[in-house]
Amino acid sequence: MINAYHTLKTGGLESLRKAIRTGAYCSHTAGLGEGLLQANLAIMPEPYALDFMRFCQRNPKPCPVTGVSDTGKPFLHTLGRDIDIRTDVPAYNVYVDGSLQQSVTQITELWQDDFVVFALGCSFTFERALQNAGIPMWHIDHDKTVPMYRSNIDTVRAGPFAGKMAVSMRAIPEADIDTVVDVSRKFPLAHGAPVHWGDPASIGITDLAKPDWGDVVPVEKGHVPVFWACGVTPQIALEEARLPLCITHKPGHMLITDVAEDAESPILMSATC
Amino acid sequence: MINAYHTLKTGGLESLRKAIRTGAYCSHTAGLGEGLLQANLAIMPEPYALDFMRFCQRNPKPCPVTGVSDTGKPFLHTLGRDIDIRTDVPAYNVYVDGSLQQSVTQITELWQDDFVVFALGCSFTFERALQNAGIPMWHIDHDKTVPMYRSNIDTVRAGPFAGKMAVSMRAIPEADIDTVVDVSRKFPLAHGAPVHWGDPASIGITDLAKPDWGDVVPVEKGHVPVFWACGVTPQIALEEARLPLCITHKPGHMLITDVAEDAESPILMSATC
Repeated sequence: MINAYHTLKTGGLESLRKAIRTGAYCSHTAGLGEGLLQANLAIMPEPYALDFMRFCQRNPKPCPVTGVSDTGKPFLHTLGRDIDIRTDVPAYNVYVDGSLQQSVTQITELWQDDFVVFALGCSFTFERALQNAGIPMWHIDHDKTVPMYRSNIDTVRAGPFAGKMAVSMRAIPEADIDTVVDVSRKFPLAHGAPVHWGDPASIGITDLAKPDWGDVVPVEKGHVPVFWACGVTPQIALEEARLPLCITHKPGHMLITDVAEDAESPILMSATC
Repeated sequence: MINAYHTLKTGGLESLRKAIRTGAYCSHTAGLGEGLLQANLAIMPEPYALDFMRFCQRNPKPCPVTGVSDTGKPFLHTLGRDIDIRTDVPAYNVYVDGSLQQSVTQITELWQDDFVVFALGCSFTFERALQNAGIPMWHIDHDKTVPMYRSNIDTVRAGPFAGKMAVSMRAIPEADIDTVVDVSRKFPLAHGAPVHWGDPASIGITDLAKPDWGDVVPVEKGHVPVFWACGVTPQIALEEARLPLCITHKPGHMLITDVAEDAESPILMSATC
């Protein structure tokens, strides 16, 4: 799999999508598809879709919608010319009544005529922009997953969707905070500016060494913990809503789209639906 | 009414909303509520709401969603502490089977338990930013309505919603085009960067002197016609979809929200639904 990763990292989108579609590659997508927008995934039956879309609109920092399918159609024409969402994500999590039931590498047999697919922006986009601005990302340089925490910040409810906001943390040199805020604010579809920096306790995080998801990273002298709204938030809301069935990507295993990650809108100019 | 306008222009949000709510003021909102986000309005029965929200997601430049109500609830808690959408817009257009039936100053008697309210970003936001950047807006300085045209640019369909994109035109000195693009791009919830500048014919506009909506404005020597996606687009889509009933604001007569127009997200921090 390591060899496959390095081959795919330097190949084009076509070979990358083919490897994922055929099941030849089913691992994480960090660093793959350079320059292309990646997306979190949430799939649910249509009766829940309007409330979920309202939830995302009311919580745009953790849940920025970058694409939505027609009902029953596994395609996202505005995000890619030939995306088939049943096969084009490396791994999926299947939830039944709000509980994780299984992880799978394709969902062709699980597909339903009433499914609606949502693609949501992810942090890979602003992390790459921060690196380009000269801000090192410790977790990437050390091949770790960013630490994520359940904060005490309430999301704005829509129908059955509610819950606390999940946040991700990156330790930033104090002198670079303004730069980090300015750069990440330019990506409203990838969580935007941080929601908090400084004392973790003021957003309900009692111990940085005990993340709820991901790995522990150090906060070195002169660095400040900076917290961004996190794409795990919709998974919390989906679990709390206890939908009879919903499907997400497996964390870290994203949809790689055809759209440039610095595009003004996540819409292919040639899109027709 | 002129006196009322000037009094309201210098008063606070509370007196402004009260004047609109009671029907004491029912004219246009350009220049009112300085610094506050204004919004276009579209209200429709719930069976159409998911498709309309998909249409907006797929056409984010003409149709940026800034707020959406719960079904049957005339409130927009994320946009204002006490907004009642039945009374808090100066004038409304009522469409039956896709045709304008009447204009009214409140919709309390027309309200239905299955209505969903959408607020969409409007151009007032980026116009104010352009003026602050030293770019004069001829139509504002001459008390005219910006000229708007039906372009040949197709929107991306969602359910019954489709049609051509409407665009608004402002004549900009050639040397200022880069500034205008950079400034307006910072407001993705207010139509963002222009969709076109230069030859009007290349987006299907044959005569600038014959706008489809609004007033004629001159394109002086050394100026270039610059076109932005326009909030009339969802009205075209709503008309083409021939909904049995839908309600919009009367053009120019916007919802004035509690949210700052330069807020990163159009969400009140205290919002709960």
